[in-house]
Amino acid sequence: MNNAPFKGVIAYPITPFDSNENIDIPLFKKQVERLVTTGSHGIAPLGSTGVMPYLHDVEKEAITEATMQQVDGRVPTLVGVSNLTTDKTVYHAQFAEKAGATAVMIIPMSYWKLTDDEIVKHYDTVASKISIPIMAYNNPATGGVDMSPALLKRLLEIPNVTMIKESTGDVQRMHYLKKELGDDVAFFNGSNPLALSAFSAGARGWCTAAPNLIPELNIALYDAIQENDLVKAQRIFYKQIDLLKFIVAKGLPRSIKAGLDLLEIGGGGLRSPLKPLNENEIAELDSILSAINKEVYQH
Amino acid sequence: MNNAPFKGVIAYPITPFDSNENIDIPLFKKQVERLVTTGSHGIAPLGSTGVMPYLHDVEKEAITEATMQQVDGRVPTLVGVSNLTTDKTVYHAQFAEKAGATAVMIIPMSYWKLTDDEIVKHYDTVASKISIPIMAYNNPATGGVDMSPALLKRLLEIPNVTMIKESTGDVQRMHYLKKELGDDVAFFNGSNPLALSAFSAGARGWCTAAPNLIPELNIALYDAIQENDLVKAQRIFYKQIDLLKFIVAKGLPRSIKAGLDLLEIGGGGLRSPLKPLNENEIAELDSILSAINKEVYQH
Amino acid sequence: MNNAPFKGVIAYPITPFDSNENIDIPLFKKQVERLVTTGSHGIAPLGSTGVMPYLHDVEKEAITEATMQQVDGRVPTLVGVSNLTTDKTVYHAQFAEKAGATAVMIIPMSYWKLTDDEIVKHYDTVASKISIPIMAYNNPATGGVDMSPALLKRLLEIPNVTMIKESTGDVQRMHYLKKELGDDVAFFNGSNPLALSAFSAGARGWCTAAPNLIPELNIALYDAIQENDLVKAQRIFYKQIDLLKFIVAKGLPRSIKAGLDLLEIGGGGLRSPLKPLNENEIAELDSILSAINKEVYQH
Amino acid sequence: MNNAPFKGVIAYPITPFDSNENIDIPLFKKQVERLVTTGSHGIAPLGSTGVMPYLHDVEKEAITEATMQQVDGRVPTLVGVSNLTTDKTVYHAQFAEKAGATAVMIIPMSYWKLTDDEIVKHYDTVASKISIPIMAYNNPATGGVDMSPALLKRLLEIPNVTMIKESTGDVQRMHYLKKELGDDVAFFNGSNPLALSAFSAGARGWCTAAPNLIPELNIALYDAIQENDLVKAQRIFYKQIDLLKFIVAKGLPRSIKAGLDLLEIGGGGLRSPLKPLNENEIAELDSILSAINKEVYQH
Repeated sequence: MNNAPFKGVIAYPITPFDSNENIDIPLFKKQVERLVTTGSHGIAPLGSTGVMPYLHDVEKEAITEATMQQVDGRVPTLVGVSNLTTDKTVYHAQFAEKAGATAVMIIPMSYWKLTDDEIVKHYDTVASKISIPIMAYNNPATGGVDMSPALLKRLLEIPNVTMIKESTGDVQRMHYLKKELGDDVAFFNGSNPLALSAFSAGARGWCTAAPNLIPELNIALYDAIQENDLVKAQRIFYKQIDLLKFIVAKGLPRSIKAGLDLLEIGGGGLRSPLKPLNENEIAELDSILSAINKEVYQH
Repeated sequence: MNNAPFKGVIAYPITPFDSNENIDIPLFKKQVERLVTTGSHGIAPLGSTGVMPYLHDVEKEAITEATMQQVDGRVPTLVGVSNLTTDKTVYHAQFAEKAGATAVMIIPMSYWKLTDDEIVKHYDTVASKISIPIMAYNNPATGGVDMSPALLKRLLEIPNVTMIKESTGDVQRMHYLKKELGDDVAFFNGSNPLALSAFSAGARGWCTAAPNLIPELNIALYDAIQENDLVKAQRIFYKQIDLLKFIVAKGLPRSIKAGLDLLEIGGGGLRSPLKPLNENEIAELDSILSAINKEVYQH
Repeated sequence: MNNAPFKGVIAYPITPFDSNENIDIPLFKKQVERLVTTGSHGIAPLGSTGVMPYLHDVEKEAITEATMQQVDGRVPTLVGVSNLTTDKTVYHAQFAEKAGATAVMIIPMSYWKLTDDEIVKHYDTVASKISIPIMAYNNPATGGVDMSPALLKRLLEIPNVTMIKESTGDVQRMHYLKKELGDDVAFFNGSNPLALSAFSAGARGWCTAAPNLIPELNIALYDAIQENDLVKAQRIFYKQIDLLKFIVAKGLPRSIKAGLDLLEIGGGGLRSPLKPLNENEIAELDSILSAINKEVYQH
Repeated sequence: MNNAPFKGVIAYPITPFDSNENIDIPLFKKQVERLVTTGSHGIAPLGSTGVMPYLHDVEKEAITEATMQQVDGRVPTLVGVSNLTTDKTVYHAQFAEKAGATAVMIIPMSYWKLTDDEIVKHYDTVASKISIPIMAYNNPATGGVDMSPALLKRLLEIPNVTMIKESTGDVQRMHYLKKELGDDVAFFNGSNPLALSAFSAGARGWCTAAPNLIPELNIALYDAIQENDLVKAQRIFYKQIDLLKFIVAKGLPRSIKAGLDLLEIGGGGLRSPLKPLNENEIAELDSILSAINKEVYQH
C-alpha cells in the first residue's frame, strides 16, 4: 500500500466560535492538543465536524495553520479542502500542502448533481496541482452525491488519490472495496455506528469526531482489532455505541460542542444557522457520557 | 393574498461564463432581454439554474445589478440570496433590496441537516433585516433539506415570508398547502414535469428555466389554465413534456446552455466542475427541440 | 381504443365478514347495490379493498358470483384474479370469465421479486387462456413489484391486455403512458390523492373505494372533468381530499368498514390479522365525513 | 437464553419441482440429506428459499413431513409457517408441531400494511396455540412489512417467541437488539452479505441457503468466529462473498437451483411464474463456484 500515511483512529476537531460567531483559535488549539495527547493516530481539521463549508477562506487558512502549529508533527494531519468549484478546491489544496499537511481530504460537493466524468476531472485537476496524497471522501448525506464503488475505483487510478473514506453507512461498500481492490487500497470508515463492522471488514482506519469525547474507548476498539480479539472488540464497541449513535443523530458539531462543555474542556459557540442542542438533548448526552465513564473505570 | 407580487411564468436565467470561466455579463443581459420580450411574467436570477452557489460574492452582486438594469421594471424580479450561513444570507438579501429587487428567494441550504427551529430562526433573522417579500423555497434535491408542510406553515407566520416555491415533485405537497392555508398562500411550482398537475392543483405560478428555450409553450400552458380550458392545457403540456424532462434529467445549467447554443442565442460556458453535455445528449436535445418547433408552428 | 370497457369511477367494494370471520354475502350484496345505485360506472370486487389475498378459493368464487347476480349487467364488472402462481391466476381468471365478468384485473403478486420476462410470461399465459380483457395493475405498495413504464408497454402488446391501472402515486408515470402510448392506451388511476392530477393528465378512469362513502363527490369530480371545467373540478376535489388521504393512510378495508358503520349502512367485520380502527381514528373519520356532508349540502 | 434451540449455520433447502411443476419429494430429501451430512447445524424448510408462499397446504405438509423423516433428529428443524391470515398461520404451526418440528419461523406477511398492534396480536394468537418456540422473522423485502426494533422487543415478551431473525441488511438493527436486549435474546442473521458483520455484532446464528452450494465455507466462517479469530474469519468471508451476493441478487430459489444443477446434485424445476436463470447468469455462477473451489482446495 503506497502513500497512505494514516491508520487507526483519525480524530476530527470541531471549529469553535466566540460570542460574535468568529472562530476561536486558542480554544481550537486546546481541543486539538487534547486529541493528540489522548492518543489519536491522526488529526483532520476542516471536515464536516469542523463546519468547513460555513467558513470564509481566511478562516479556513487560519484553522489549517493553527493545526500545523499545534500538532507539530507528532501525528499526521489530513486537511479538508473541498469546495463546490474546482478552482477553489485547488486553491485550498495548495494552501494545505504549503502549510505542511500530510494529506488532503476531498468530497465532491454537489449542488448540481455531478456526473462521474465531472467528478473524475475534478479530482484529476486538483491532484495534478499538488504532490501530497488525497483521500477521496464519499458521504451522500452531507455532500449530496453518492460515488459508486465503480467510480471510486476510477478515482484510485489517479496517482495521488490513494485513500478512500466511506461514510454511506453501508458495510457492503467496504466489502466491495476490499474484494475488488484488495490490499492495494486503504479504505477508512467514516460512519461511527459502523465502526465494528468496518474494522471487521478490513478498514485501515476510522475517521471520527468521537475522540473529542471518549478517546480511550475509540482507541481501545482499534487496539482490540489489532490484537485479533473480536470478543474484546465487541465488548468495547457496545460500551460506546450509544454515544456514537447520539452524536450522529444530533449532528456532530452540535453534539461534540455540547459534550466538550459537559466535560469542562469547553466547546465554544456555533455559527448560525446552527444552534446548540436543547436542554433535554444535553441531559441525554450527559447521561450517556456518565454511563460510559462509570463502566470504563469500573471494568 | 398580500404582497405576493408574482404569478404566471417566472423565468430563471442561467449564468453564462466566458472561456476563462469568468461571468459573461453582456451575454447574461442578452439572455435576460429575450426572457422579458418573449413574455415571461417575472425574472429570477441567481437560482439553481443560475449556479448561484458556485459564484463569489462580487459576481452575485454583478448579476443582481445587471438584471435590474436590463429588466428595468418591465416585470417583477426575484433574486436568489441563499447561503449556508445566516450572516451571508442577510448580506445578500440586503444587497438585492438596495439594488431594486421585487422580492428575494431563500432556500435553507444545508450541509448539516438543520432542525426546524434553526430554519425558522434563519428566515426570521433575514426577514427582520429587509422589507421586501421572501419566497421560501423547498428543494431537497439541491438544498439538502426537506421542509415539511408543517414547517412551511410556520415560516408563513413571519410577516414578509409570503410565497412558497415547492420543488419536491410531489403534488400532494401542493394539495396540503392549498387545503391547509387556503387562498392566503401563494404557492409556486418549481418542478418542471409537474407543471400541469401543479396548475391543476391551484399553483399561482411556475418557476422554470424552460422559457430560455420554449417560452411560447410555457406561457401558452398558463394561458390555457387561466381560460379554464383543461383540454387545451393538457394538449399544450404534452407538447413540451419531453423537453421539461430532459432539462431536469441532465441538469438545468448544462441543458439550458446547450439549448441556447442550438437556438443560436448563445449559451456561454460553464464553471468547473460542471461540464457541457456530451455529443449524444446534445443530439437528443436537438431532436426534442426540432420536434417541438415543428409541432408548434404546424398546429 | 379497443376493448377497454371502463371509464369514469370504478368502485371497489370491501369484503365484509361476520362475527366468525366468514364472508357475509348478504351484506356484500347490499354494499354492491348501493355502489350501483349511487352512480358508479363500474364495480370491481376482489381488489386490494376486497382483501382478495386473504380469501380462500371458494370464498373468491362466492364473491364473484354474488357480484354478477347483484350488478346484473347494469354496469361493467372488473374482477380481481391475481395470485402468486401462474396456475392459480389462470384458474381464477377462467372462473371470472365463466361467471360473466366484463374484465379481470391482475397485479403481478410477488414474494420473490419477478424479472420482467417472468412478468410478461405470467400475463401472456393467463391472457391466452381467457377471452375477456385484462387490466394490468401496478401497485408496488401492496404487490411488492414496481412495473416500469417500459414493462407496461410490453404487456400492452399482449392482445387482451388493454388497460393499465397505475397506483404508484407518481403522476409522471401517467405522463409517460399518455405520451408514449398515446390515445391507444386506456390508463386508470388507482391512487386516491392523485385523482385530480390523474384526470388532468388524461386518465380514463379512477379505480377507488371512496364511492362506498362519498359517491356524489367522486362522480362530480369526473363530471367536472368531462365538462372541461377545471375550476369546478378543483373545488370538488379539495372538498374530498381529506377523506381520500384518510382512507389511504389507515388502510382501505379498515377505513371503508368504519365509514360504512358510521353511515349506518353496515361495514361488517374484518379477518385477522386485520383489526378495526381504534376509537380516535373512528372519531377522526366521523369528523371528516361530517365536514364533507355539511359542505356538500350547503353549496 | 431460554429455549433458543439453534446456533451456527441454519440451512434453508429449496423446494424442487418436477416437469409438471409438482413438488419432487425424493429430490427434496436428497438435498436435505446433503445439508445434514455436510455439517449444517439446523434445517429450515418452507422458508423464502423454499418458496413457501407458492405452495398449497397439502404440499407444505408433505415438505414438513419429508424434512422430519429425512433429518430424523440429527439436527434441530425450523419450519416456516407464515400466512397472510392468522387462522391459517395457526393451522400450519400446529401441523409443524405435531410433525415434530423443533421450532417454527413466522414472518408477518402483509398485503395490507399491518399495524404494530395487529402484528403483536397475530404472534400472540399463534403462540398461544402451540408449545414449541417461535422465531420472529423480519424481512421487508419479501414480507412487505418492516418490524421496528421496538416492535421486535414487544414480540419477545410473548413467552415462546424466543428468537429473532433479521434480514433487513442493516447491521445497526443487530446492534440495537444486542444492546437493548442483551444476552437474553437470540438473534439470527438472514442477510447473506452481512454474515461477517452480523457475527461480529454478536449474532447467534446465520440463516442461509448458501450451504446448498458451499457448506464448507459457511461453516468455516462460523468456526473462525467461535475461535475468536477475526483475521481468519475475514479471509474465509471474502472467499465466499461473491457467491453470497450472487444468490441474493438473482433470487435464492433460482440461483440455488442453478447451483445444484452445476454441482450435479440436481436442482429440479421451479414453479411459474419463477423461471430459471438465463445462460449468462448460469455461466457467471459457474465461474464464481469454480473460483471458490479452486481457492478452497489450494489453501
